[in-house]
Amino acid sequence: MESKTTPQVVVVGAGFGGLQAARRLARYPVRVTLIDRKNHHTFQPLLYQVATAGLSPGEIAAPIRWIVRGRRNVEVLLGEVQDFDLQRRVVKLPDLEIPYDYLIVAAGASHAYFGHDEWEAFAPGLKTIEDALEIRRRVLLAFELAERQAASGEGQMPLNFVVVGGGPTGVELAGTLAEIARRVLADEFVSIDPKATRITLLEGGPRLLPTYPEDLSRSAEEQLRRLGVEVHTSTMVTGVEPAAVWMGQTRMPAAVTLWAAGVAASPLGKKLGAPTDRAGRVLVAPDLSLPGHPEIFVIGDLASLQDEHGKMLPGVAPVALQEGAATARNIGRDLRGEARQPFHYFDKGSLATIGRAAAVAQFGKLHISGFIAWLSWLFIHIFFLIGFRNRIIVLLQWAWSYFTYERGARLITGDVRLPGWEELQRAETASSEERRRA
Amino acid sequence: MESKTTPQVVVVGAGFGGLQAARRLARYPVRVTLIDRKNHHTFQPLLYQVATAGLSPGEIAAPIRWIVRGRRNVEVLLGEVQDFDLQRRVVKLPDLEIPYDYLIVAAGASHAYFGHDEWEAFAPGLKTIEDALEIRRRVLLAFELAERQAASGEGQMPLNFVVVGGGPTGVELAGTLAEIARRVLADEFVSIDPKATRITLLEGGPRLLPTYPEDLSRSAEEQLRRLGVEVHTSTMVTGVEPAAVWMGQTRMPAAVTLWAAGVAASPLGKKLGAPTDRAGRVLVAPDLSLPGHPEIFVIGDLASLQDEHGKMLPGVAPVALQEGAATARNIGRDLRGEARQPFHYFDKGSLATIGRAAAVAQFGKLHISGFIAWLSWLFIHIFFLIGFRNRIIVLLQWAWSYFTYERGARLITGDVRLPGWEELQRAETASSEERRRA
Repeated sequence: MESKTTPQVVVVGAGFGGLQAARRLARYPVRVTLIDRKNHHTFQPLLYQVATAGLSPGEIAAPIRWIVRGRRNVEVLLGEVQDFDLQRRVVKLPDLEIPYDYLIVAAGASHAYFGHDEWEAFAPGLKTIEDALEIRRRVLLAFELAERQAASGEGQMPLNFVVVGGGPTGVELAGTLAEIARRVLADEFVSIDPKATRITLLEGGPRLLPTYPEDLSRSAEEQLRRLGVEVHTSTMVTGVEPAAVWMGQTRMPAAVTLWAAGVAASPLGKKLGAPTDRAGRVLVAPDLSLPGHPEIFVIGDLASLQDEHGKMLPGVAPVALQEGAATARNIGRDLRGEARQPFHYFDKGSLATIGRAAAVAQFGKLHISGFIAWLSWLFIHIFFLIGFRNRIIVLLQWAWSYFTYERGARLITGDVRLPGWEELQRAETASSEERRRA
Repeated sequence: MESKTTPQVVVVGAGFGGLQAARRLARYPVRVTLIDRKNHHTFQPLLYQVATAGLSPGEIAAPIRWIVRGRRNVEVLLGEVQDFDLQRRVVKLPDLEIPYDYLIVAAGASHAYFGHDEWEAFAPGLKTIEDALEIRRRVLLAFELAERQAASGEGQMPLNFVVVGGGPTGVELAGTLAEIARRVLADEFVSIDPKATRITLLEGGPRLLPTYPEDLSRSAEEQLRRLGVEVHTSTMVTGVEPAAVWMGQTRMPAAVTLWAAGVAASPLGKKLGAPTDRAGRVLVAPDLSLPGHPEIFVIGDLASLQDEHGKMLPGVAPVALQEGAATARNIGRDLRGEARQPFHYFDKGSLATIGRAAAVAQFGKLHISGFIAWLSWLFIHIFFLIGFRNRIIVLLQWAWSYFTYERGARLITGDVRLPGWEELQRAETASSEERRRA
């Protein structure tokens, strides 16, 4: 990697991994080009709060340019990388090619529907700000449409919300939805009773939060039940349609279905030509480089790497952050002619929140639940949130909604129709006529 | 209006007028149904702040249900009123009819394109949260696309922003855009210089802020010029296309065009069958009722009424608020068998902001400009903003961006293409080739 000119590092993706790599690389004698499809970095751990109207998009996202401002050797480009030419060492955008000396691919992952992409229209997932706004729209709209139907004298329709997937995102969504129905909206409707809402969490495996210790899975399930969530484990979803979810022969009606189940790595992983695992993640060398291409690194959710115990590193923010920093250090070692170091993940613990003052946490051998876990979750997340102003405002919002049970961002923007609502109405009218005849 | 059952008042529209009427009516022995197309009330005077990324949508909008919570005789319905049947006294929604004893129509106004609705796609107006997000998307995207083009070695494209209409909204948009280009974004781009942005404000009449005293119009123009805005008065726009605005035979290229010119009353006004003025506003009786229909009131931007000096009441929030309250009082008088009172507008003054610490204000004979006017504007607007939490957060955002020149809500959501961008690029490439040949 010898060159008389300043080496050019191209970073694809400004999630936790890519952004961390770019910020650390700014200290080295390199030029960095950071490319992302969005103009903002999204703090994904709090995305469920936007989906459930607790926070506004602007509070958990920050312009990438603003984050790296003042670093004169870092350039930010808005654009979608479509391919790479590893021979010519260029990154390909639709209207532009960018040459690199080093390439860091941190394109992340998206939700996957087990080969049933047609389910997405009826069961949105939660990876971007746009996803979060779509979920918020559907959830709030379901209550409004139920109220309008009840006001026209047709009685209260049963409102079912179904969350598919019992990982951290599914647990967070189900818990927060229960709170909204039972506390936030309880007194604001005249014709319907939001407390009559049913929230169901479906998990294919035997327990919630499968990557957590078993006692914390049990605790999470218990805390969810206390909030009024129906939890079904070992329950595989086999079909999703406009107003219902199928589990084998069982059909569960659902006003709104949310998808928090599968994850698939970015299709950019496959374009690198190296072996990938089942989820499309690139099998990287111990220094996170692409086998046979020391000038290319793959980090974050797109990388597949095992720790020293043979356990796959999980797709969480701390792994991506540490990988970004480690990659910057290895490029620095290259520039100084030193040997690279393999990546080691330092696991500081795991945290998942369930609702107001409810959470589970693991710090090494320490397993905690409830209020203390929730407080730890709160402060760790606010600490890592980018932007000082955002931190103050989010803390203020949190304090406010903790004491008042209010959620300030309850706006329905966009279309005021809900896919499948007519089907639900027809089914309900039919079944209430049946009841009348019986 | 005698009836043994509780009278039913239907309010159409939850803007300033409708919301105020509903809140005041809650004190009387009536049942109120408040219908709006959105689930939220929008604080329109601060909408330009969302369009220019200073505030998030959730900070200037609040759920209508939340605003009227605790008033058990007020019911809120999300829905679009399509027509009225004045004979049968029902309000018609697509799937539902709602009977009324009293009807208050407060459906407001939207932007108008002088009969050229096809211009809207290239020059969005600013009336809803969705409009504001679309403007924000286009403004931020223009800088990003210019940076990407410059990064590909094609040089900096001239970035023109054109604002059509020199009323308060146009003045606010132009002033804030100038600040963004010159202060907020100045240091965040590497390949382009945001300070080279041109902002042009076009007004058809002889002066800006035509409803304000002449000295304040001059002051506003002066303050805008100091911010770097090019102001053209007596300039009529005769055509809008994807990347340009026509004024007679003159064509002005524009990366983004914003529309702050015409206003048209809601089409619901015409459905009431009464005479309307040129802008579609209903000519109401002195008590704001529909001539010949004492049970129907029309208030806010949809009503056309002159004050005692023969001057049209302007379409601003204070007029709508006072009309809503006056209508509730007149319905109360009806219920007690008292005579109605005609509406009198109490003009407390006018305020328009231009930028950071720049504004003009008129309080009776007192005309002020600059920092003091801006402070008055700030505190009056924050005082009237609905929701205590919102007020704190907006004040905090303001203080923060005042001292740091940061704008926290700079997210591009949705499509990352800009209508007309390719045309602009082609034109620029052609003209730079021309220059090269010359």
